[in-house]
Amino acid sequence: MTKTRLEAFSDAVIAIVITIMVLELKVPHGDTFAALIPVWPVALAYVLSFIYIGIYWNNHHHMLQAAQRVTGTVLWANLHLMFWLSLIPVTTAWMGEAPRATAPAACYGAVLFMAAVAYLILQRTIIATDGEHSVLADAIGRDTKGKISFGLYLAAIGLAWVAPWLSQLLYVLVAGLWLVPDRRIERQLSTGE
Amino acid sequence: MTKTRLEAFSDAVIAIVITIMVLELKVPHGDTFAALIPVWPVALAYVLSFIYIGIYWNNHHHMLQAAQRVTGTVLWANLHLMFWLSLIPVTTAWMGEAPRATAPAACYGAVLFMAAVAYLILQRTIIATDGEHSVLADAIGRDTKGKISFGLYLAAIGLAWVAPWLSQLLYVLVAGLWLVPDRRIERQLSTGE
Amino acid sequence: MTKTRLEAFSDAVIAIVITIMVLELKVPHGDTFAALIPVWPVALAYVLSFIYIGIYWNNHHHMLQAAQRVTGTVLWANLHLMFWLSLIPVTTAWMGEAPRATAPAACYGAVLFMAAVAYLILQRTIIATDGEHSVLADAIGRDTKGKISFGLYLAAIGLAWVAPWLSQLLYVLVAGLWLVPDRRIERQLSTGE
Amino acid sequence: MTKTRLEAFSDAVIAIVITIMVLELKVPHGDTFAALIPVWPVALAYVLSFIYIGIYWNNHHHMLQAAQRVTGTVLWANLHLMFWLSLIPVTTAWMGEAPRATAPAACYGAVLFMAAVAYLILQRTIIATDGEHSVLADAIGRDTKGKISFGLYLAAIGLAWVAPWLSQLLYVLVAGLWLVPDRRIERQLSTGE
Repeated sequence: MTKTRLEAFSDAVIAIVITIMVLELKVPHGDTFAALIPVWPVALAYVLSFIYIGIYWNNHHHMLQAAQRVTGTVLWANLHLMFWLSLIPVTTAWMGEAPRATAPAACYGAVLFMAAVAYLILQRTIIATDGEHSVLADAIGRDTKGKISFGLYLAAIGLAWVAPWLSQLLYVLVAGLWLVPDRRIERQLSTGE
Repeated sequence: MTKTRLEAFSDAVIAIVITIMVLELKVPHGDTFAALIPVWPVALAYVLSFIYIGIYWNNHHHMLQAAQRVTGTVLWANLHLMFWLSLIPVTTAWMGEAPRATAPAACYGAVLFMAAVAYLILQRTIIATDGEHSVLADAIGRDTKGKISFGLYLAAIGLAWVAPWLSQLLYVLVAGLWLVPDRRIERQLSTGE
Repeated sequence: MTKTRLEAFSDAVIAIVITIMVLELKVPHGDTFAALIPVWPVALAYVLSFIYIGIYWNNHHHMLQAAQRVTGTVLWANLHLMFWLSLIPVTTAWMGEAPRATAPAACYGAVLFMAAVAYLILQRTIIATDGEHSVLADAIGRDTKGKISFGLYLAAIGLAWVAPWLSQLLYVLVAGLWLVPDRRIERQLSTGE
Repeated sequence: MTKTRLEAFSDAVIAIVITIMVLELKVPHGDTFAALIPVWPVALAYVLSFIYIGIYWNNHHHMLQAAQRVTGTVLWANLHLMFWLSLIPVTTAWMGEAPRATAPAACYGAVLFMAAVAYLILQRTIIATDGEHSVLADAIGRDTKGKISFGLYLAAIGLAWVAPWLSQLLYVLVAGLWLVPDRRIERQLSTGE
């Protein structure tokens, strides 16, 4: 079945993206604990992005479990999501290096926003492909969490001009919101089995 | 079955190639939006190559689905394709750094041309291995798109001496031509099921 | 089944972590055998970490074989383990560059300690998920080796302030302790088949 | 079955190793064709190593197909092989940078030699695990090609002190010898089916 290969490819890309970020964590200059201090903001940005990519992997995992058919359009919608996810390491590194600047904080949010858009497109594509009996459509429901996230991302991007730390706080908030995996789909799947 | 492992290996290589390119996207120097301007041509080259590798992954995916047997010769023809694909990140970075120069634009096209040759060899190898009942042979048909691409690549390489942006325009054109996944194989497979 | 995809993702992350460390092994400066001398401590640190990650892969492999159900909580416990494993290359490089300093030796141990904690959490999560008929719980038994390791890691971190080479000796010792794969689970599984 | 996961892990490591080498191929300094000239020896070394790793992947693929059981010892013998393969990119880059020096040419051969030793150990381990009905043992036969390779590697390492290009010639020769995939195992497997 073709779904297996789509999952394998996505797993590989997400695994690479999540570990590529480690390469941005430079070996500290010097051999004392004091040498760890400048690494701090980068490390925090790395943890946040690790959680984001983890959330995407978890939800992607559940979404594809619910998907019934994989077409060329689904493959491209998936690649589009991978594209935005693969930009997270570079925006993470930029925000980690200049944690108090407007541009990095706004760009970090813009990439997260586009990743969320790409996720939504993939979701819609799978539902449209599966048709009216879509397990995914039932599982998603009204997607309140998704809608709130979009609003928070936009607010965070705007707040980058006011105070970058406010944007960063919102990024942490959205991550917290999603840290709970999508139990709705999980429940739907296990009752359907 | 051995086909699974060939697919898994190819998926891993393609996933790495597509994300290695991200590493070429350097963190901008400076913390303002102005710092993003010099990154622009590299980012555009990255998007184009991402689409190319996406196309290869999609078509490779469909081609292997149609393949019936995997021999040592098929494995090597596949590795040969992986070799040329793995050169795309470095030519992408070169063209992104010097978007108006002849050599990078010509080399970018030369690697794409060789990848197309390697794809054709793999296709022929699979058809020869599967013999007269090859699902792939029926699915490919006259391969007009393939023939046009070869012509456009050669034209683009030549035009690099005239005006690199003309070559780049042709690279975008060929990508556009292939962005539509190979519905011929998909149709063939679903009717054959 | 969802377990397959969890394994595939973990394999990919562990494979990337183990090979990312190679990138830290710089090409020697100069073209003589003497140029290899400064590379030596980094190479030794690399070998040690390679063995550690190999141990984690092996035990992770056996643990997941014994796992019966995969829930969202298991996915996150697994990602948490991946997080700490992905920090090993950077602490390895730091300790390799400054083998006689306190901070790198202590940090190397701290990351190993946290990875061990994450492993334990994953184990507990799987057992709690599988419930009273857990194959894993029977296989683990009293986990003496695990308890000894925690003690040795803490001792090693403390000793980094006394003599870093003592810490490093303890890291080698713990690795030796685990090099024997978890035959308990293997036995349990093969008798259960 | 556990063999699947061993294959998946090996595929991932080999795929990463083969593409990590690309990272050593630096973007040329300058935007003319002349800028490609200093890249030449590195590119040739890269092609040779690509073929070597391709050979290992192919033969590893066939060997594991013939393997019947996977134990902890097999896992470690496999990791040991992965260790030596993961050193190929760094020795390749060194030999590519200093193609006329003794030390890089000798080290390149030493890593190939150790990889061959690790391969042999893995083979023996699998045969010992499978016992007297081992499909692999029948397929390997007297392993003349393997024995010749060991001799040629040793000769090449020695010749690095006489003339590095002679060593490099021998490395090309051994690669040529193995480029033909292991048809013996393939034949054995297809008759056994």
